[in-house]
Amino acid sequence: MKPVVSVLGAGNGGQALAGHLALKGYSVKLFEHPDFGEKVSVIESRGGIELRGNLKGFGKLEKTTTNAGEALAGADVVYVTAPSFAQKPIMDKAGPYIDEGMKVVFIPGNFGSLEAASWLNAGKKEGVLLGETNTLPYACRQIEPGIVDIWGVKTKVLMAALPSKRNEELIQTVKEMFPTDIVKMSNVLETSFSNLNMVLHCPTMILNTGRIESREAGFRFYTDGMTPSVCKISEITDEERISIGRALGLNLQPQTQWLKETYGLEGGNLFEVLQGSDVYGGHGVDAPKTMTHRYLTEDVPYLLVPVASFGRALGVPCPVIESIILLAGKINGKDYFSEGRTLERMGFPSTGIESIREKLLEGA
Amino acid sequence: MKPVVSVLGAGNGGQALAGHLALKGYSVKLFEHPDFGEKVSVIESRGGIELRGNLKGFGKLEKTTTNAGEALAGADVVYVTAPSFAQKPIMDKAGPYIDEGMKVVFIPGNFGSLEAASWLNAGKKEGVLLGETNTLPYACRQIEPGIVDIWGVKTKVLMAALPSKRNEELIQTVKEMFPTDIVKMSNVLETSFSNLNMVLHCPTMILNTGRIESREAGFRFYTDGMTPSVCKISEITDEERISIGRALGLNLQPQTQWLKETYGLEGGNLFEVLQGSDVYGGHGVDAPKTMTHRYLTEDVPYLLVPVASFGRALGVPCPVIESIILLAGKINGKDYFSEGRTLERMGFPSTGIESIREKLLEGA
Repeated sequence: MKPVVSVLGAGNGGQALAGHLALKGYSVKLFEHPDFGEKVSVIESRGGIELRGNLKGFGKLEKTTTNAGEALAGADVVYVTAPSFAQKPIMDKAGPYIDEGMKVVFIPGNFGSLEAASWLNAGKKEGVLLGETNTLPYACRQIEPGIVDIWGVKTKVLMAALPSKRNEELIQTVKEMFPTDIVKMSNVLETSFSNLNMVLHCPTMILNTGRIESREAGFRFYTDGMTPSVCKISEITDEERISIGRALGLNLQPQTQWLKETYGLEGGNLFEVLQGSDVYGGHGVDAPKTMTHRYLTEDVPYLLVPVASFGRALGVPCPVIESIILLAGKINGKDYFSEGRTLERMGFPSTGIESIREKLLEGA
Repeated sequence: MKPVVSVLGAGNGGQALAGHLALKGYSVKLFEHPDFGEKVSVIESRGGIELRGNLKGFGKLEKTTTNAGEALAGADVVYVTAPSFAQKPIMDKAGPYIDEGMKVVFIPGNFGSLEAASWLNAGKKEGVLLGETNTLPYACRQIEPGIVDIWGVKTKVLMAALPSKRNEELIQTVKEMFPTDIVKMSNVLETSFSNLNMVLHCPTMILNTGRIESREAGFRFYTDGMTPSVCKISEITDEERISIGRALGLNLQPQTQWLKETYGLEGGNLFEVLQGSDVYGGHGVDAPKTMTHRYLTEDVPYLLVPVASFGRALGVPCPVIESIILLAGKINGKDYFSEGRTLERMGFPSTGIESIREKLLEGA
């Protein structure tokens, strides 16, 4: 029998995933936080999600609701598709209804499973199997509530479980549901460290601050915005990410290599690779128009801060990452180092490498 | 009798100063490094400097030469008008001919007198009176060698001597030569800490990296480039500068207050003040087109680095300044922290506040 699914979070990604799984014949309930009640009513009245673009069809949902108890009743697999900053508000509502037999996968994780372990632990749900991906499998955008345009489906998604000794069990359960290949990572750190948004978005935002806030016509983020010096800083950010990952025993792919392999691009450095990319350069003026965009407000506290926190704990310097975090915080009036996803928040009170590995493997 | 003057450095500022002093009846010799021999020949063949714009006339020079011995023979006052990075090459040539009775003033100083004290000390010239200003008194640009357009004359120039116990003696000697009021500072740190280029230029460059390197039409640096977030970082940079200055006992004016007083502007913060400024906004597209511009290559190693060095020595944190220095260095492939004007280079092997004060007052 097919697993019963709950999708928590009815944004672009949640609607795409819920609609697509329903279309494939799964029983799917979609939950959204009560703050977005109006959107939920519209989707519920439609009875499901219409997919357009690269995937077409109508996925009939069992229910769309702001009631977490209703959404989670009988679920085998729970996907949390909220943006990072909404993971906790969503889990605050959902936590009481998550049973120990459920598998809860954060798409993408951004280290969310580690923090969720402590939220659930407070409710003594130690047997829950958690998991993370590095990204959403779809490139998509909601046209209106209940109608989603699927621009594309990615070639692969990285995944791991917390505890990582249950990696295989998680992937076997979910692999039929995904429209992509699932690549098994060593543990949830390897998935979240592999989210390249942190190295592509954050330095580019900071080094284009004046342009983003100017009254000009806008610019193409990944090509016009990623000039030789911007790319140089992005590359150093990437080197710091990889060297911290190495200290954690993670096997991370450099961003330039990932871009080349994923999009069949060529070039000796990041700048050359991006200049030749239709994927990144071909969709016109697309840069954020404000510094409170999620490229900073999500990617700094939920990606760069946890990475830097591991760097600090393990004595691996990451001065460029620290500078980007600091400047982003000063610009947005936030202390991202303390407000972001720190080691402590991720449940690593002890920071020795052995205790970190033990927690990833065993989940406690 | 009027003092005999040598001007070392025949760039925009050196030509303006030499020409203007000659026009006022001083005996002036102009020196330039042999690397710029061709320019020197042109000026020498003209016999002097033609001033245009706000100051008009022909200043007949005694000599324009690449021979430091000729340039310095008989000089009472020596002005060093080279950019910071050229101060040492110029002083390497001039040092052997600087006699103990001479007064040597760096315009602007950018902490150059402190470093010069150790260069001269190597030649055992302990009695030389050194000095610094915070800025050149003229806003000017060479039209061609020997012809300088004077856009404007500033309302005041800050000055101090090294040792500072001879402040009054220095200012009495030079005040008739200056087209501006001279404001006596406590010591040479107070003049160089007052050079606002570091807070106006450096953060604005870094936060406009993508725009500076883009293929667009360019932008107005001080208005289009100084958006609300850029101004916020500039203001924090300024607060850090002032707090390090306070630890050194310096009385520094905040940049926004200085802008308001100097240009009669209004506004509650830097952004508002700059938006209303014709001085800064009125001369069209003026932003640098490369990150190797002196706004970084001079202002980071010769202004921000010495300020941060004092911050480190005195335990006053300056995380935004440190971030700007770091990113500028990574962009330009330099380690500005070690290549710049550090405490050690400025002759402060001991970094206690008392030893710093003693050196400023006594000069050794």
